[in-house]
Amino acid sequence: MSRDRLIEQLQSIVGEQSVLYKPDDLVAYECDGLTIYKKRPRAVVFPANAEQVAAVVKLLNREKQPFIPRGAGTGLSGGAIPINGEVLISLVKMKRLLEVDYRNRTAVVEPGYVNLRLTKAIQHEGYYYAPDPSSGMSCTIGGNVGENAGGPHCLKYGVTSNHVLGMEMVTPNGEMVTVGGMVPDMPGYDLTGLLVGSEGTMGIATKIFVRILKKPQGVKTVLALYDSVDDASQTVSAIIANGIIPGALEMMDTLAIEGVEKGTYVVGYPKDLAAVLIIELDGLTAGMEETANEIVEICKGYNVREVRVAQNEQERGLWWSNRKTAFGAMGNLSPDYLVQDGVIPRSRLPEVLSRIAEISRDSGLRIANVFHAGDGNLHPLILFDADKPGDTELAVKVGSQVLQVCADVGGSITGEHGVGIEKQNDMTKIFTQEELDAQVAIMRVFNPDNLCNPDKLFPKPSRCAEVKLVGAHAH
Amino acid sequence: MSRDRLIEQLQSIVGEQSVLYKPDDLVAYECDGLTIYKKRPRAVVFPANAEQVAAVVKLLNREKQPFIPRGAGTGLSGGAIPINGEVLISLVKMKRLLEVDYRNRTAVVEPGYVNLRLTKAIQHEGYYYAPDPSSGMSCTIGGNVGENAGGPHCLKYGVTSNHVLGMEMVTPNGEMVTVGGMVPDMPGYDLTGLLVGSEGTMGIATKIFVRILKKPQGVKTVLALYDSVDDASQTVSAIIANGIIPGALEMMDTLAIEGVEKGTYVVGYPKDLAAVLIIELDGLTAGMEETANEIVEICKGYNVREVRVAQNEQERGLWWSNRKTAFGAMGNLSPDYLVQDGVIPRSRLPEVLSRIAEISRDSGLRIANVFHAGDGNLHPLILFDADKPGDTELAVKVGSQVLQVCADVGGSITGEHGVGIEKQNDMTKIFTQEELDAQVAIMRVFNPDNLCNPDKLFPKPSRCAEVKLVGAHAH
Repeated sequence: MSRDRLIEQLQSIVGEQSVLYKPDDLVAYECDGLTIYKKRPRAVVFPANAEQVAAVVKLLNREKQPFIPRGAGTGLSGGAIPINGEVLISLVKMKRLLEVDYRNRTAVVEPGYVNLRLTKAIQHEGYYYAPDPSSGMSCTIGGNVGENAGGPHCLKYGVTSNHVLGMEMVTPNGEMVTVGGMVPDMPGYDLTGLLVGSEGTMGIATKIFVRILKKPQGVKTVLALYDSVDDASQTVSAIIANGIIPGALEMMDTLAIEGVEKGTYVVGYPKDLAAVLIIELDGLTAGMEETANEIVEICKGYNVREVRVAQNEQERGLWWSNRKTAFGAMGNLSPDYLVQDGVIPRSRLPEVLSRIAEISRDSGLRIANVFHAGDGNLHPLILFDADKPGDTELAVKVGSQVLQVCADVGGSITGEHGVGIEKQNDMTKIFTQEELDAQVAIMRVFNPDNLCNPDKLFPKPSRCAEVKLVGAHAH
Repeated sequence: MSRDRLIEQLQSIVGEQSVLYKPDDLVAYECDGLTIYKKRPRAVVFPANAEQVAAVVKLLNREKQPFIPRGAGTGLSGGAIPINGEVLISLVKMKRLLEVDYRNRTAVVEPGYVNLRLTKAIQHEGYYYAPDPSSGMSCTIGGNVGENAGGPHCLKYGVTSNHVLGMEMVTPNGEMVTVGGMVPDMPGYDLTGLLVGSEGTMGIATKIFVRILKKPQGVKTVLALYDSVDDASQTVSAIIANGIIPGALEMMDTLAIEGVEKGTYVVGYPKDLAAVLIIELDGLTAGMEETANEIVEICKGYNVREVRVAQNEQERGLWWSNRKTAFGAMGNLSPDYLVQDGVIPRSRLPEVLSRIAEISRDSGLRIANVFHAGDGNLHPLILFDADKPGDTELAVKVGSQVLQVCADVGGSITGEHGVGIEKQNDMTKIFTQEELDAQVAIMRVFNPDNLCNPDKLFPKPSRCAEVKLVGAHAH
C-alpha cells in the first residue's frame, strides 16, 4: 500500500487531524528521552479511544506495518524510537481519569493520563498515586506501565507493577482483552505482572486499573552531608538494618551536587561535599519524631559533617526540587550526558562506586552519581560532548562498562528505565541464550508477527544499519 | 515402557529407596489438602538435587509420562492430585537453607524447605520471612511459590510473589534455567512473577531466592468483639481509611467462633458474638501505643461490645493460635468441611456476607466465615457430611455459588489457595475464552507437551472420568 493510501486509511479511523505524516511534523517524534538515536516514523496516529486503537492495530496488521505505542516520549532507553520507521500510536489523547473508588482504593485511567495528575485529582480526599518518577509532571501512566517506572518513593511503596491491578488492552493483533481486575488476587498466571514492564512489545493498554493510597499523615525529611561516600553508604545500610524503611532514601555524589547547585533550585550545599543523603520518613505521625532522631544518631555514628531535619514544607520542597532536577542539571556541567540505570545489592555500593570512578578515570569522561540508595538503584550520569568526534560512542561504551560492573556484583542492568534499544545488547550480561529464548517465545505468544515494537528489548546480532547515532543535546 | 522398567529407570537416577511405587505406599499421595478427590499416582520419586530433578523430568519426557511437582501436599485446591495417574516429583528431600545474606536481606532455599523453618533459622539475627500461611509449620516454600501463598500478614507485606526475587528451575522439558536474580529489578519480562502462582504447570523450582525482612521492633494486637458483622466490617474500612495499615486484620464470624472455641486453643469468647476482629500493628515501637489507642477509638465508633489490647505475648499467642486453627476446628462442628477462597473489594463485605447467608439458608449447609478482612480475602467454610448421599456434591456446588457472588461484585475466585482442580471450571466466571486462551498459550511456551501438571488450572469441557469424587474427612 502506498504511503498515501495507508495515511488515508488511518485518517478514516481516527479523523484527518489525528494523523501526522508530513516530514516536518514528524521531527519531534524521531526520538524519545534517549536522544542519541533518531529515526523518522512513517506516521504518528492519535486514537481517541480503545476501539480506534484496535481498528488502527488491525489495519497495520493487514498491511504488515510495524508500530509502537507511545506515551509522552519521556522514556530514557529509546523504547519509543521508530528504528524501523514504525507508525507511532500516540496515546496522549486518551487522557481521562475514568473512575475513582476511594473506599476500595482503586482508580481507572486511560493510558495517556499524566502520572502527577492522578495525585492532583485525588489529593483533596487525602489520597495519592505512589509511583513518582522524576518526569511525573509529563510522563503518562501508560508509559509507566510499559517501562515499569519507579521513583524515589518506590523504596517503601514499590514500583509501577506493585500498583497496577489490571488493564484493558489491545493485543498486537488488534483484539481487546482484559487482564487482572479490580482486586489484587486473580487466578491463573499473573499476566498483568508480565505485561507491566514489557516495553510496548505485548500490546497497548487502553485502560489501567491502579491502586491509590491514603496520603501519609506526616512526613519528616532528614538531610545529611558527608565528607566520604563510604560513610554515606554505610549510613544507608545502617538505617535499613535498624528496621527503618524510609519513604525515600536518596544519595547524590560530589559531581551531581555541583550540577544541581548550578541549577534553578539551589540548596546551598558546601562546595567540598562528598555526598548528600535525603532520608524521608512518611506514615503515621505518632513516633515519627523519635524515628527521625534515631536516624540523626545513625548519621552521627558514620561521621556525618552536618545533619538536619526539614523545618517546614518549603525547605523540604527545595531539597526535593534540587534532587529531582539532577538529570537536567547535568546540562550545567556538560553539553551532553547519558543517564545510566543499574541495580546492585545495597552492600556492594562502596565497591561499585570505586569501580565507576576507575572507569571514569580510564575513559576521561566525568561521571556524576545519583542513586535511589535505599534500593541499590544507581543512576550514573556520563558527561560527554556530542560535538567532539567519538565522544558519543565513548559515552555509550562507558555506560555499558558501568552495567557490567553492576552485573558482576549480582545486580541488574536496569532499575526503572527499561532496556529499549539502549541496553538490548547488554541483556547478555545477565541472561543466557536459553533464558533470552524463553522471553522471546513468550513475547511471540502475544506478538506472533513481531509487528508491535519489534527489534527492541532483546539483543540483535547487529543493530539496524539505518539507525543513526547522532549527537543531540539531552534534556 | 512397562511400569517396572520406568520404575527401574527412576531408581537408577535417584536411588532405589527414593521411588515409591507399591500401591500401599501410594495411598498417602492420592490427594493433597483437597481431600474430596483422590487418584493413585503412578509413582512418587524423591530427587535429592536439581540434577536429579532434571534427569527425572527428561526421562519422563522421553516416556511421555505426565508428572506433578509436589511439596508438603498441604495445597487446598487439589493442584498436586494425580488426576491422570501422574508421577509425583516430591521435593521434600531438597530442604536445605543454602545461603543467608543479612546485609542485602536475601536468602536462598531449596523448594522442600519448610516455610516456618526459614524464620526460625534467621530470627536470632532479628530477621524473618514474611509470607505466613496458616500451614507454615508444614508447607514448603516451593509449594508456596507454586500457589503464590498468602497469610494473615500479607495485608501489609504482600504475598509470596512479593518476596521471591528469582529462582533456579527445571523446565517441563528438563532444562535448568535461572529466572530473576538477587536484586528486585531485572530487565525483560517478569518471568519470576509469571512463574510464582503458576501451580506447577510451568516447571519445578530447584532453588528459590527470597527476600527476608527485619523483624518489626514491636507488635501490638487489638481484639474487638462485635454484636454485628456490619459493624465489624465498617471498622475494617474505617481503620484503613484512617491511613493505618495493620500487619494483619482478621475477622471470624459467629459459626467460626463456635468452632474454634471447641478446639485446642480456647480464648473464652462470649457465646453470642456476631464477629471478632484481630487487628495487629507491627513496626517501630515509637508511636505504636498512640496508633493502638486510635484503633480502639475507631472500634468504639462502630458499637464494639468489647475491645482490648493484648497485655503480653502469651495472650497474643493464644488469640493467634485460636485463629490459625480455624479451618481444622470446623471438625468440631461437622464431619466434613470445604474451604473456599474468594476475594472481594473490601467495601462490599456486608453485602457479600448477606448473600452467603442466603446461599447457606437455601442449601441447608452451614457456612462459617473466616477472613483476611483487611484485603478482602474470604474463607467461607462449608460444612457438610460426606456420608450423607449428595452432600459432597452439594458442598462443591455451594462453593461455586459463593465464588459467583465474589465474581459478581468484581472480585476473584481465589485469593491464595489457587485454582487446581477445585476451581478450574470457575475460571469462566471471570475470564473470557480469549483470555483463557492467552493463558494456555503462555503455559505451552514452557510446557509444550503438556506433561507438567496437565489438566489443572484451566476449565475442561468435562473433567476426567477416572477422578472419583469421594467423601473423605477433611483435616
